[in-house]
Amino acid sequence: MEKNTVKSLYRETEKYLDQEVIINGWVKKIRDQKNFGFIEVNDGSFFKGVQVVFDTRLSNFEEVSRLSIISSIEVKGKLVKSQGAGQAFEIMAEEINVFQKADLEYPLQNKRHTFEYLRTKAHLRPRTNTFSAVFRVRSVVAYAIHKFFQENGFVYVHTPIITGSDCEGAGEMFRVTTLDLNSLPKKEDGTVDNSKDFFGKETNLTVSGQLSGETFCSAFRNIYTFGPTFRAENSNTARHASEFWMIEPEIAFADLEANMELAESMVKYIIKFVMDECPEEMEFFNNFIEKGLFDKLNNVLNSDFGRLTYTEAIDILLKSGKKFDYPVEWGIDLQSEHERYLAEEYFKKPVFLTDYPKDIKAFYMKLNPDGKTVRAMDLLAPGIGEIIGGSQREDSLEILENRITELGMKPEDYEFYLDLRRFGSFPHSGYGLGFERIIMYITGMTNIRDVIPFPRTPNNAEF
Amino acid sequence: MEKNTVKSLYRETEKYLDQEVIINGWVKKIRDQKNFGFIEVNDGSFFKGVQVVFDTRLSNFEEVSRLSIISSIEVKGKLVKSQGAGQAFEIMAEEINVFQKADLEYPLQNKRHTFEYLRTKAHLRPRTNTFSAVFRVRSVVAYAIHKFFQENGFVYVHTPIITGSDCEGAGEMFRVTTLDLNSLPKKEDGTVDNSKDFFGKETNLTVSGQLSGETFCSAFRNIYTFGPTFRAENSNTARHASEFWMIEPEIAFADLEANMELAESMVKYIIKFVMDECPEEMEFFNNFIEKGLFDKLNNVLNSDFGRLTYTEAIDILLKSGKKFDYPVEWGIDLQSEHERYLAEEYFKKPVFLTDYPKDIKAFYMKLNPDGKTVRAMDLLAPGIGEIIGGSQREDSLEILENRITELGMKPEDYEFYLDLRRFGSFPHSGYGLGFERIIMYITGMTNIRDVIPFPRTPNNAEF
Repeated sequence: MEKNTVKSLYRETEKYLDQEVIINGWVKKIRDQKNFGFIEVNDGSFFKGVQVVFDTRLSNFEEVSRLSIISSIEVKGKLVKSQGAGQAFEIMAEEINVFQKADLEYPLQNKRHTFEYLRTKAHLRPRTNTFSAVFRVRSVVAYAIHKFFQENGFVYVHTPIITGSDCEGAGEMFRVTTLDLNSLPKKEDGTVDNSKDFFGKETNLTVSGQLSGETFCSAFRNIYTFGPTFRAENSNTARHASEFWMIEPEIAFADLEANMELAESMVKYIIKFVMDECPEEMEFFNNFIEKGLFDKLNNVLNSDFGRLTYTEAIDILLKSGKKFDYPVEWGIDLQSEHERYLAEEYFKKPVFLTDYPKDIKAFYMKLNPDGKTVRAMDLLAPGIGEIIGGSQREDSLEILENRITELGMKPEDYEFYLDLRRFGSFPHSGYGLGFERIIMYITGMTNIRDVIPFPRTPNNAEF
Repeated sequence: MEKNTVKSLYRETEKYLDQEVIINGWVKKIRDQKNFGFIEVNDGSFFKGVQVVFDTRLSNFEEVSRLSIISSIEVKGKLVKSQGAGQAFEIMAEEINVFQKADLEYPLQNKRHTFEYLRTKAHLRPRTNTFSAVFRVRSVVAYAIHKFFQENGFVYVHTPIITGSDCEGAGEMFRVTTLDLNSLPKKEDGTVDNSKDFFGKETNLTVSGQLSGETFCSAFRNIYTFGPTFRAENSNTARHASEFWMIEPEIAFADLEANMELAESMVKYIIKFVMDECPEEMEFFNNFIEKGLFDKLNNVLNSDFGRLTYTEAIDILLKSGKKFDYPVEWGIDLQSEHERYLAEEYFKKPVFLTDYPKDIKAFYMKLNPDGKTVRAMDLLAPGIGEIIGGSQREDSLEILENRITELGMKPEDYEFYLDLRRFGSFPHSGYGLGFERIIMYITGMTNIRDVIPFPRTPNNAEF
């Protein structure tokens, strides 16, 4: 007889009611009376468990009564309507086979544990309600992203993790090496001879796949990356991790307007998908993690995202009468307080800011005719601030070369990138979405360490 | 008016015939006569291009006639049935706007280039037929894998890339560090003080996500990883890359039989999906890359994969009468020549070999009652040899601890892994599929450097 899953019992209850079923899973709770008892069994397929009723008709009644939390068992029995409150159905056990009676020292007994404590048990925490919900949603959101792009004809590109170029220019990098640190090869001047390293030169972990992604955009029109990226920044905040996943789509023959349309429809698609696919988990988040989560997400789904320029935003901030910690003037990099005022208080919905001063944005963004702003866009969302950053890319070889030189970088380090402007240059745009950031937004979890299976942060690479 | 894609013109020809269309793309070929000309435009959305006919009615006829290969253009015109041979329809241009006339030094003019040469132009090679087909198929196969697992209720896990444990035990690793190699912190004994490194200890790039994957299996029942893995092996072969992607599913309450069923249905699903979704690319591979590719793949789709034990396989090899370079005896690690004999000559279909000698397999594989073999499985396929390797996992705490000790490893390095055997141990199984290997199998490409966008191999980390 086929094994059933708890999910199938919930999703197709009518089909299984009054039938024999077999469930394999773990004891979440157990209560035993003199002649009978109840076990809540979770099999990992579903957010909720199923109640199993057993009594002295079991040949191993004694063994079953003494089972400890998280013991692994197989239950055969009939699925029946439940007499008790709290569940619609339960299994009347005819046979319970014990795979293993769990060690009594199980560190996650049924009581409240802090998220901090659970981080020290990262290998066990997905068994708890909160982290079971978080990591299932993480999986479903990842799939939603692939589905969205693939069904729209985008090509998925694996851009390299180990990079030999230091031109990605977005922060401090991790060195990758096979040199023996206790016996480094040296050049005549006494410095390390990187030519002896595995790749014949210094290599690092990537901080962004964008530049390589653009090369594929010039071949496949619309592409996306979805892979791990790294920052060697020594910042111990709830928002920073050293290793995180990023999605970077790039679209050809597309201006900033098309870029914003893509970002808006992607965000809405993801949220709708996860609300449809994970109703139990999302309800848990709404009830226990972030009150008002559904209102926040429904507001995103039902809004036309706002669009305004950076210059207009500065104007709004100046006229707001608000006292900000960081004074507002044209040219500043907006701080979280400014972004949140705009999204939460002023617009009360997600809003795209565009056309930022070139001096606070990356070299590859397309220069506007005014010569001082670039076709950048940031998506600011209520409750989190910046969630997406992107731009139309500079497609003029001359302007791009000038900009690279002006910033003191070397054009020869960017030959492959400049080639895209020599050989069939085309208007194109793209953006980056931090995967963990959207997971935090959707779940209401406030620490990035709690949405990554095994987070890496300064002084922490456990498991 | 909405822009069209070349793909939509091919897939929905009837809808667009005799209508105005707008295409943005690149000049693949151009032929001009005195008063008219033809351009093959490729827009990246589709394997094939569309023919555009232009004549002196264009206001910029002179400019268009002189366009160089890979110039970027926008074409407005009517889609009509083609008079010429070789295409069913073409666009009669009414307007052609030039984004950029490409530099004449374009290195990929329309002539044959060797794959070796094209590797030096990895940023441009996806624009060629072969690599456009390879990398679109790569993307579609990636999606097929996600779709297969997600639709079967598997949870996708991002296992860590940077690992602080050296217990993954599958080959040489890349060190990850932020220490300044020219000024290393030293301990009193003169060796490097790794406690001063970013994570407070030595860290490396992962070689496998399996052990972390198992922790999620104990929470979600069925899970899979799909991410980059690394080997710092100095082997310059057509089959080895330093950075490659791997898929590692792990299933709970599942023995080796269930594991084989999963692997077989996954392989068939992937092949069928890509043949359905990429008919033009697959036909190209069948015609130009591997003669007989369709026969090979159809044979996989239509076979029930064979199943036999390692011991039975040794017997077949011994009785084969074949002279092998590596002599056959019970206990040897099978070589490619043995694997290919079994799959190609003897069974003529994919075949699972199971129950290998424990001494040639990993420590975590479940020991058979005979005490000398383990519940391993390798899937051998005609034309490639081993394509999948997996096992049922040892779920007995005692046997696993003994095995770790017996192999001279330290149980304390495996605490999190042993915890899974302390707290609700359960039968489970899983396998690893090298992503590039399945892409090579499906496309017929024979060098791993030609199925990775920007391959990393010893002395090569360009782009």
